Amino acid sequence: MTGARFITFEGIDGSGKSTQARRLADTLRSRGDDIVLTREPGGAPGAEEIRRLLVEGDPDRWSPETEILLFTAARRDHLETTIAPALHRGATVISDRFADSTRVYQGAARGDLRDLVDRLHDMVISREPDLTLVIDMDPEIALNRGLARASGEDRFEDMGLDFQRRLRAGFLDLAREHGLRCRLIDGNRPADEVAADVLKAVDA
Amino acid sequence: MTGARFITFEGIDGSGKSTQARRLADTLRSRGDDIVLTREPGGAPGAEEIRRLLVEGDPDRWSPETEILLFTAARRDHLETTIAPALHRGATVISDRFADSTRVYQGAARGDLRDLVDRLHDMVISREPDLTLVIDMDPEIALNRGLARASGEDRFEDMGLDFQRRLRAGFLDLAREHGLRCRLIDGNRPADEVAADVLKAVDA
Ligand SMILES: Nc1ncnc2c1ncn2[C@@H]1O[C@H](COP(=O)(O)OP(=O)(O)OP(=O)(O)O)[C@@H](O)[C@H]1O
Ligand SMILES: Nc1ncnc2c1ncn2[C@@H]1O[C@H](COP(=O)(O)OP(=O)(O)OP(=O)(O)O)[C@@H](O)[C@H]1O
Ligand SMILES: [Mg+2]
Ligand SMILES: [Mg+2]
Repeated sequence: MTGARFITFEGIDGSGKSTQARRLADTLRSRGDDIVLTREPGGAPGAEEIRRLLVEGDPDRWSPETEILLFTAARRDHLETTIAPALHRGATVISDRFADSTRVYQGAARGDLRDLVDRLHDMVISREPDLTLVIDMDPEIALNRGLARASGEDRFEDMGLDFQRRLRAGFLDLAREHGLRCRLIDGNRPADEVAADVLKAVDA
Repeated sequence: MTGARFITFEGIDGSGKSTQARRLADTLRSRGDDIVLTREPGGAPGAEEIRRLLVEGDPDRWSPETEILLFTAARRDHLETTIAPALHRGATVISDRFADSTRVYQGAARGDLRDLVDRLHDMVISREPDLTLVIDMDPEIALNRGLARASGEDRFEDMGLDFQRRLRAGFLDLAREHGLRCRLIDGNRPADEVAADVLKAVDA
């Protein structure tokens, strides 16, 4: 029995977040838990409309500042519409990405905007996850996995290996800074082994 | 000759902002001025995409906080993409609504959110108009004018006469608070007379 826990998956593109979030949801559901599996950007009807602005069309049509505002608007909607009500009724919420992604991606792209990200978070989000599973892996392996997919939403993957390396370093820093809620998971192993580690962290 | 001036029109729904903004643009253009006529929400391709989220579909799908974030995202894009480059090349920018609309509408709907509106403005907008023409008029007359139109975007007009009265009071307060840049124009007169007053204020 878990109940009213907010768990997020974070990590670079193609590290296995969606795979592991789905597997964890299945496992906990099979134990009879009330599970809400969701994702960012999106995770609520309004937030998914905002997601479309972010991932479809020319990504360069938004400045970093406008993009941060759109991510924050989508997150606020996601929090109000999906996450908070689910936690309120005692469910476990599993989100494939959350605020840490914005922190790390903006930090890697435009470090000077990290302050804007943090202030917006404090003003309209505030809520942090109870547990964040940071899936760590070599960007080269993750990118190769990603090439096998055809999502049509490769917004950030286009930015190349060097950018993914900065992201990886950003997620490692974040896991250290937020050591209380973050668990680092080695993602460079078969999905079953990764899933076993994830479950261990969730049950701990 | 004007040059590099940022002029906005504000006022309740149906007070004649769009009519007067267009007329002013025509008059100044006929004098040979470089004029950019624009509007909010929108006024740039990305900002117009965000506008669609705000004015189309069920308006109640956004909380006031999410709505403020979306308005601010659209304004940031409008400022960066349309307003700032035009001012930079020395043009006069005429905008049909700007930040004052968010201040007054949010103040009238949810006074406690005025602080969020102001803090977001300070963080990502900052720029204030050089001249703001606040068209004042009786909401009952404005609403009747509005009924003659079929815009399909009557987002706020649906909120009724009492709300429009609060808006009017909000615009009057704003014109007093920002006395240096705001000019109050009596909108309850034939469009020619209103336009003559607008031009007087612009040329002053
Ligand atoms: N442990 C694993 N070993 C090998 N392949 C995996 C593993 N986990 C996931 N994959 C595959 O790698 C690809 C990326 O996985 P997934 O979509 O779960 O990653 P992601 O972190 O959600 O990516 P994105 O950031 O793009 O959403 C998929 O094709 C998936 O099937
Ligand atoms: N001075 C005027 N006298 C009579 N009718 C007017 C006058 N000015 C505008 N109108 C008419 O009133 C209606 C509303 O005007 P307009 O669209 O310019 O207002 P607005 O402030 O832009 O409204 P909205 O807030 O809905 O955008 C239009 O049908 C317009 O033709
Ligand atoms: Mg994924
Ligand atoms: Mg108008």
